[in-house]
Amino acid sequence: MPASKTGYLTVASSNSLERSDIMNQPPDIVRSAYIELVVTDLARARAWWVDLIGFHVQHEQDRALYLRGYEEFVHHSVVLREGRVAACERMGFRVRTADDLDRAELFYKERGCEVQRMPEGTTPGFGETVRTVDPLGFPIEFVFHIDRVDPLVQRYDLRHGASINRLDHINIAIPDVPAAYAYYTSLGFGLSETIEDLADGTLYAAWMFRKQTVHDIAFTLGAGPMLHHVAFAVPESHHILSLCDTIGARNQAHYMERGPGRHGVSNAFYLYLRDDDGHRVEIYTTDYFTGDPGHQPIRWDVHDERRRDFWSNPVVPSWYQGSVGLLDLDGNPIPVQAQDPTERTVTVGADGIGIVVNE
Amino acid sequence: MPASKTGYLTVASSNSLERSDIMNQPPDIVRSAYIELVVTDLARARAWWVDLIGFHVQHEQDRALYLRGYEEFVHHSVVLREGRVAACERMGFRVRTADDLDRAELFYKERGCEVQRMPEGTTPGFGETVRTVDPLGFPIEFVFHIDRVDPLVQRYDLRHGASINRLDHINIAIPDVPAAYAYYTSLGFGLSETIEDLADGTLYAAWMFRKQTVHDIAFTLGAGPMLHHVAFAVPESHHILSLCDTIGARNQAHYMERGPGRHGVSNAFYLYLRDDDGHRVEIYTTDYFTGDPGHQPIRWDVHDERRRDFWSNPVVPSWYQGSVGLLDLDGNPIPVQAQDPTERTVTVGADGIGIVVNE
Amino acid sequence: MPASKTGYLTVASSNSLERSDIMNQPPDIVRSAYIELVVTDLARARAWWVDLIGFHVQHEQDRALYLRGYEEFVHHSVVLREGRVAACERMGFRVRTADDLDRAELFYKERGCEVQRMPEGTTPGFGETVRTVDPLGFPIEFVFHIDRVDPLVQRYDLRHGASINRLDHINIAIPDVPAAYAYYTSLGFGLSETIEDLADGTLYAAWMFRKQTVHDIAFTLGAGPMLHHVAFAVPESHHILSLCDTIGARNQAHYMERGPGRHGVSNAFYLYLRDDDGHRVEIYTTDYFTGDPGHQPIRWDVHDERRRDFWSNPVVPSWYQGSVGLLDLDGNPIPVQAQDPTERTVTVGADGIGIVVNE
Amino acid sequence: MPASKTGYLTVASSNSLERSDIMNQPPDIVRSAYIELVVTDLARARAWWVDLIGFHVQHEQDRALYLRGYEEFVHHSVVLREGRVAACERMGFRVRTADDLDRAELFYKERGCEVQRMPEGTTPGFGETVRTVDPLGFPIEFVFHIDRVDPLVQRYDLRHGASINRLDHINIAIPDVPAAYAYYTSLGFGLSETIEDLADGTLYAAWMFRKQTVHDIAFTLGAGPMLHHVAFAVPESHHILSLCDTIGARNQAHYMERGPGRHGVSNAFYLYLRDDDGHRVEIYTTDYFTGDPGHQPIRWDVHDERRRDFWSNPVVPSWYQGSVGLLDLDGNPIPVQAQDPTERTVTVGADGIGIVVNE
Repeated sequence: MPASKTGYLTVASSNSLERSDIMNQPPDIVRSAYIELVVTDLARARAWWVDLIGFHVQHEQDRALYLRGYEEFVHHSVVLREGRVAACERMGFRVRTADDLDRAELFYKERGCEVQRMPEGTTPGFGETVRTVDPLGFPIEFVFHIDRVDPLVQRYDLRHGASINRLDHINIAIPDVPAAYAYYTSLGFGLSETIEDLADGTLYAAWMFRKQTVHDIAFTLGAGPMLHHVAFAVPESHHILSLCDTIGARNQAHYMERGPGRHGVSNAFYLYLRDDDGHRVEIYTTDYFTGDPGHQPIRWDVHDERRRDFWSNPVVPSWYQGSVGLLDLDGNPIPVQAQDPTERTVTVGADGIGIVVNE
Repeated sequence: MPASKTGYLTVASSNSLERSDIMNQPPDIVRSAYIELVVTDLARARAWWVDLIGFHVQHEQDRALYLRGYEEFVHHSVVLREGRVAACERMGFRVRTADDLDRAELFYKERGCEVQRMPEGTTPGFGETVRTVDPLGFPIEFVFHIDRVDPLVQRYDLRHGASINRLDHINIAIPDVPAAYAYYTSLGFGLSETIEDLADGTLYAAWMFRKQTVHDIAFTLGAGPMLHHVAFAVPESHHILSLCDTIGARNQAHYMERGPGRHGVSNAFYLYLRDDDGHRVEIYTTDYFTGDPGHQPIRWDVHDERRRDFWSNPVVPSWYQGSVGLLDLDGNPIPVQAQDPTERTVTVGADGIGIVVNE
Repeated sequence: MPASKTGYLTVASSNSLERSDIMNQPPDIVRSAYIELVVTDLARARAWWVDLIGFHVQHEQDRALYLRGYEEFVHHSVVLREGRVAACERMGFRVRTADDLDRAELFYKERGCEVQRMPEGTTPGFGETVRTVDPLGFPIEFVFHIDRVDPLVQRYDLRHGASINRLDHINIAIPDVPAAYAYYTSLGFGLSETIEDLADGTLYAAWMFRKQTVHDIAFTLGAGPMLHHVAFAVPESHHILSLCDTIGARNQAHYMERGPGRHGVSNAFYLYLRDDDGHRVEIYTTDYFTGDPGHQPIRWDVHDERRRDFWSNPVVPSWYQGSVGLLDLDGNPIPVQAQDPTERTVTVGADGIGIVVNE
Repeated sequence: MPASKTGYLTVASSNSLERSDIMNQPPDIVRSAYIELVVTDLARARAWWVDLIGFHVQHEQDRALYLRGYEEFVHHSVVLREGRVAACERMGFRVRTADDLDRAELFYKERGCEVQRMPEGTTPGFGETVRTVDPLGFPIEFVFHIDRVDPLVQRYDLRHGASINRLDHINIAIPDVPAAYAYYTSLGFGLSETIEDLADGTLYAAWMFRKQTVHDIAFTLGAGPMLHHVAFAVPESHHILSLCDTIGARNQAHYMERGPGRHGVSNAFYLYLRDDDGHRVEIYTTDYFTGDPGHQPIRWDVHDERRRDFWSNPVVPSWYQGSVGLLDLDGNPIPVQAQDPTERTVTVGADGIGIVVNE
């Protein structure tokens, strides 16, 4: 066998089209890639996110932790920064090329949004980024270059907690779901699933994707804009059960808000947690492939009890509310608009358990 | 809440760039999408693929079965056609747009390959396709339109066997792996993992992807071109163990060739099966996301015992050979070129178990 | 190697003491072994118990089904008999020797209970039995001989549903838990766990065993005597999740009453179901060994939220009530004594979900 | 509800017969309860048994570690004592009453075995014991009292490695399996499974039990007496896969000798390990209940490929040999008798993998 050329070790660009001359386009978003959260006690947050849940600490600097899951080949997907009030500082999208940063800048300026261009190194491990507050009122950031770091996929000797693989998606609470749907459609997101009133067309929730899974972003009807939750993929359902058992052993059930269970929407096996600051985290596994052209959404009727839990276990009312508020580009809280209270009803089911009907 | 616009139920095209005027490009392949196999006894093949392994029969026509996994939203991913000699009739790639069929036709004609354009309906459930025998000597086909059929993802009442989700990848046996690597690179495939001699750069095997997983195609060094195996994703590792137990209960261990185990390459939990015609099928779960721009490959040294089985369990020698031969566009067998026999060694390890070193 | 004696294929009696002359003893109960239930539609019951849940039909005769789990080497552990009103006809204990039937007869006659001696074959697969209504008001039966039938442990090709292994325990609803505790102690049962008010010593629930697991019998405080539930062991937790998914797929969540979850008491992973007649069935796995001499019970305080669900998920109020009534030796309903209603409180927790405090 | 009597918290003796006047009986063995091993480097052994495999360290004293699994309510099940040569110092049985120590003393003296009575505290956590070298040449010990320690069953926050629950059984290598069968039958052990030549009655291996599982002791034909392996139960099969992955991640495949796989005999999911001293440890889960009176053994033919591995994966030849030698009551090595070499054959199968036929 002849010796190979070193060339074959280069990854071919997965999309070889020339794009540099096409600027009247939204940025080509690859996926939801990271989240930056303010926590009020960094040591306590580390005990929760790292020791209990199972993230890897990639970097620590200036009262902030940079975390990743074991399947992430890049510097981090979570930043926990110590501050006075728990909040979501920003969520971040990775784009396909450096040019997409220019497109992002242009796209949001044309929509009247304030845009900041942050130089390489502003965030450890990151190249240049573009920050804005989007038309929905969310602080978002775009990045192309993230440092590649040593693979940990098979470091089973280090994996612990729920064996966190990677950030999967971000869910936002917002009073106007159709507006959120329209905006993310304009960014090129596909629609994988909805909760609707199939009788009258009211849209209660939507799941949208860029990467080839069920979603990168989803919308929950409620007061907002707020962060609803950030979700992390783990390998198998038993990793989720194991985390539940550990939390039970520590007598810290207040960290578990909902689940474990099987979602109707997305088919994922799930668990919702709240950290000490109220940040809601979903642990998530076994959703499905959506990468085919023309992939059609699955539409759930709001009256199908299985939409939120495929086994029809009731959703705890607290879950229907956003978790933490957001910060603007200057670090100030973004005002929250109440959902019309007439649209939210709490009833008590025949079995004595309260059922929330805000969908 | 205002009634939603019907518009939000449309899937946005996931790549919004205009491509129709860019023809000097390879077809934009979305993924490995299907395989067509000749079996010598269709009833026996049905008992194996459907009753034992767990596929869903979508369609049956003219001595052929059209099968899909429970996560596939499209008509089929496997065709089993009855014939005189077991073979692989073709493997198929799904492309992103109808225009990519034109690109495929041009791309292969320019490379001197015979190309056939097949009208819609030639294959049940399929639109127009383009067939060729590629420069590696493989019969391949491109399709854009495949009928969308009812989702079965959550039909847990129907799932059985190993709970097959979807076709994940195809592996080909070929005497010249670097040539296969170069050809698939020209088609825009990314490289996720390799087995090499890190000392001298010899390339023994490579894993390449279009969809955002470890691979759509892989190359195993050996006599060829032959089909090595076709792999199907299942939800969790216990589904694989369950299939092993069922095969044990039926006293049909001859169907199990290798595994179960954890791959070094790809990190997947795996099992290799051979059906009654010798078709090799891999059951596969929990590999990882590769969709980031600039994703870098993992390079395994050929001397790392963990490359093929992360627990270093020996690979049975038969596994290193292709499974079935291929058919050209006229249905005639494609000649197989032997691998240089000096490159293949079988030794017996200290523990008395034969170890193949063809890598 | 010399040929062996046929003798080594005989099972040694596991207790070799001479007992025949020791009659002033309770019967030596090996375990809770079977239950006989009245169902109102046998075809419907078969669809549930066999097709959905996963029992093996060993025998069918005279409008009755005789079922077993795949780990049971004996004729049956469940009898479903068609009748006008759903009920529990009897629960059955297997005893160690034929002499224990005599002891049972004497033991209950001395306690003033009506006793019937049933000849071999009254129940298909059974030798002679002794029936009575015990001091708690339960119809019980003792059997020594049960036909040994072909092992199905490894018939993974037949296992389905939740892969039922064997009857594990029976739980009874009763207004006086200390009386039930005292009675079963007199029968030689050991105590593995309790729910008590550790401040005042009130006993709310107890788990007692003869075989070397957490229990054969347990008591739930409530109106009674009634059957609370019968539990069946399965191999692993994923078999329980799989059953939940199948029920979801069939849109039959009304069959799921509570769970899945991890018990505090017993450590078992569990799911509670109700069949179409209201019979409550628990699917249960991974409790622990209790066979050591002097095994000490684990005592849970009634205020520890983890006692019923180790993850502190709320118990649905319906679960605290018995499932079906009982029949006396003539087949007539046994009267139910109400629990003092002042002992039962329903409150609504801070999260809006109703919490039952009858413990 | 009336306050309960404190009496109900006492465990009833699970066998209430008076035995004190019955001395012409073997000791009433409850189960295989512990093993004492000599390791040559205690720190290294701790890294393996505790950090990697997942035992709990209950006690450390005088160059010895006292370990238990998380389901064991008693002081320890493993003693690792540092010494010059790796060996098995003794294996231990727990008996039902203090009187059984007297019975053990008498039983072995009558068989001409040297017997030592060790006072309480000789072993930390133990009451008085009786030591002997049994007629098979094994150093064994009987204990009644073992200190009860805090339950760890639900300390999921501490469980790690393979989540070790408890010692399940011990397997011995011995040249005369029928003799071992006869001896353990005389001790009151039941027979659960065999490997035989069903044509001529030759007994190759046997599995025997006191507790209600498949075995407490088993015999492997080979040079002996030697320890073949000691096995520990874990909750579920994924705990075994997880340990394999961790070992792979540490690149220490030399610790894995055989598996993972499903046993034919016992139905257990298994993995065999060797520690740095060559001690063979099995990790084991999901065997079955054997506690019924008259439980009948399952007999495997030696030619059924599934007997050792239900999926017919070949057994590595090294596995058929004992692991370490034994020490007599004075700490001196017990001589090993070779198996007749004509009874052992190694052949190479059609697939090039060596198959051992010593059965």
